[in-house]
Amino acid sequence: MDIKKWIKTEAKCFTDSLLTYLPDGKPKKLYQAINHLPSAGGKRLRPLLSSLSCEAVGGAPSDTVPYGIALELIHTFTLIHDDLMDHDEERRGLPAVHALFGEDTAILAGDALFAKAFEVASQTPVTDSILTILTRNLSCMTQEICEGQQLDMDFEYRDDVSENDFMEMIEKKTAKMFEYATYGGALIGGADKIEADALRHYGKNLGLAFQIWDDCLDLVGDDTLGKPLGSDIREGKKTLVYIHALPYLTSKDKKIFSRIFGNKSANKKDIQSVISLLKKTGSIEYASSQASTFVSQACASLDILQESTAKNRLSTIASYAIERTK
Amino acid sequence: MDIKKWIKTEAKCFTDSLLTYLPDGKPKKLYQAINHLPSAGGKRLRPLLSSLSCEAVGGAPSDTVPYGIALELIHTFTLIHDDLMDHDEERRGLPAVHALFGEDTAILAGDALFAKAFEVASQTPVTDSILTILTRNLSCMTQEICEGQQLDMDFEYRDDVSENDFMEMIEKKTAKMFEYATYGGALIGGADKIEADALRHYGKNLGLAFQIWDDCLDLVGDDTLGKPLGSDIREGKKTLVYIHALPYLTSKDKKIFSRIFGNKSANKKDIQSVISLLKKTGSIEYASSQASTFVSQACASLDILQESTAKNRLSTIASYAIERTK
Repeated sequence: MDIKKWIKTEAKCFTDSLLTYLPDGKPKKLYQAINHLPSAGGKRLRPLLSSLSCEAVGGAPSDTVPYGIALELIHTFTLIHDDLMDHDEERRGLPAVHALFGEDTAILAGDALFAKAFEVASQTPVTDSILTILTRNLSCMTQEICEGQQLDMDFEYRDDVSENDFMEMIEKKTAKMFEYATYGGALIGGADKIEADALRHYGKNLGLAFQIWDDCLDLVGDDTLGKPLGSDIREGKKTLVYIHALPYLTSKDKKIFSRIFGNKSANKKDIQSVISLLKKTGSIEYASSQASTFVSQACASLDILQESTAKNRLSTIASYAIERTK
Repeated sequence: MDIKKWIKTEAKCFTDSLLTYLPDGKPKKLYQAINHLPSAGGKRLRPLLSSLSCEAVGGAPSDTVPYGIALELIHTFTLIHDDLMDHDEERRGLPAVHALFGEDTAILAGDALFAKAFEVASQTPVTDSILTILTRNLSCMTQEICEGQQLDMDFEYRDDVSENDFMEMIEKKTAKMFEYATYGGALIGGADKIEADALRHYGKNLGLAFQIWDDCLDLVGDDTLGKPLGSDIREGKKTLVYIHALPYLTSKDKKIFSRIFGNKSANKKDIQSVISLLKKTGSIEYASSQASTFVSQACASLDILQESTAKNRLSTIASYAIERTK
């Protein structure tokens, strides 16, 4: 089975589990808001990575289910709050939670999902001492995600965002959760320190590659099913592609750029002219080559693990992360 | 030493501990927002109740410090998000976090404080199995607090809020945290089931009394240092006093009420006329007698505990909860 199909099948199984853990209760409005996004599906990459990491070190993948659900709940909570902060009105083809239930309930639904994550994580079938480590990791991870989101928001008002700044931001905002997905899975599977560190390293690099490629997809991806191409340009997002391009722009290019970048009403032609510039400066190519480098680093970390189907799948997922078109 | 002075001294010590646990980091704006309220002081009742509950069952009160700090961090996180939802611009005599740092950073600061709470709680010096229970309790408690806040917001648009509805709301929004403060302290102190349940019961009833009395203070309290009298009337809050009064109002009273209740620009004279009505219907008296009943129930729960200074202090704090004037 090809990896895309396999991920889809696994995601479906995981969504079924997730729904059994999801709270239902009163007040009705709050619980409708809580259940809105989780019911809408998703790639479920984070729980999948936990499960494969556990299996790759000889553990039972099903042991990771509560931890994986906790990750997905935290991921969902951050999406709800981020959409509110970023004024994004849609998510997974549905209205964002704040668009449907109002800002106040969106804040509360995020808070409640985050709280629920710790309750579910505490059901992971491991010793209490491993559970304490998992809980502490989820806590530290979320603090870093908050830092990443604040950095991302700060970038909007800064003209001096460097590649290092950008990498710090995506490491916190995106890669940390991949890192703790694989690391947590390894701990649940009884990994020794070398294995756990290797899988942690794999997760972090995969997360970096995933995010950089996501930003590239905004410029070269398949826009038939997702957001329109160039959304990041319209929103003035300082991605790696943008940061790389800046020093290579001629003054004429800069004029075009300054008219279109961050202009929410830019039309398709405008967007195409900026994408052409980003191609000319080699910036899309640069970013995708960076993504490839992180994928190679991720895969190299897996070398110390014994051969297994799970290990092969982790490797295939890493390649898939920069081959996908949406 | 009288209890008010004693609480003040303990709160000061606790604030010193809290500040050592508080995170400092980058991005600067986020960490300034995170540290804004905790540095502003507060009664620190929740950690104090944990510490006394632990001591009352023979435990070392200092063992509760991390758990108490976790409670205070969660309390602070809910205050930050609630102030944002309720459009309250001030807290503890300072601008609210969202008023000073913007709504987005206020959401993030709350999230980060909540995440931090689990990291700090995990440092409580107890066995990992007790730690798992404490973590799960903090998670369930926060879900109930979110439900309580949603109920409170829903009440604004409802004309049929009953006394039962109101009690359910304050039990979730306020009393749960008191309940888990004392219950958690008891567990940390090695309480047996009877002691732990007694202290839990004490905390819950104290929390109910505390909130009902807080609402009474808005009508009869000392307004020289806090919010102006009648803030809840101006905001149209459906407190126990309001709910009790409704059926006793004449049609003339109702006219006065409907003009002033929920009217943000009501003047002092308006407010006084509503307070007079609430006195006439016996509603302030009713609510304060309900608060007294909950205090009695709280104190009665303590009976099964051995005599100790801590037990006496818990009893005194319960009485203080409905004697305080601010």
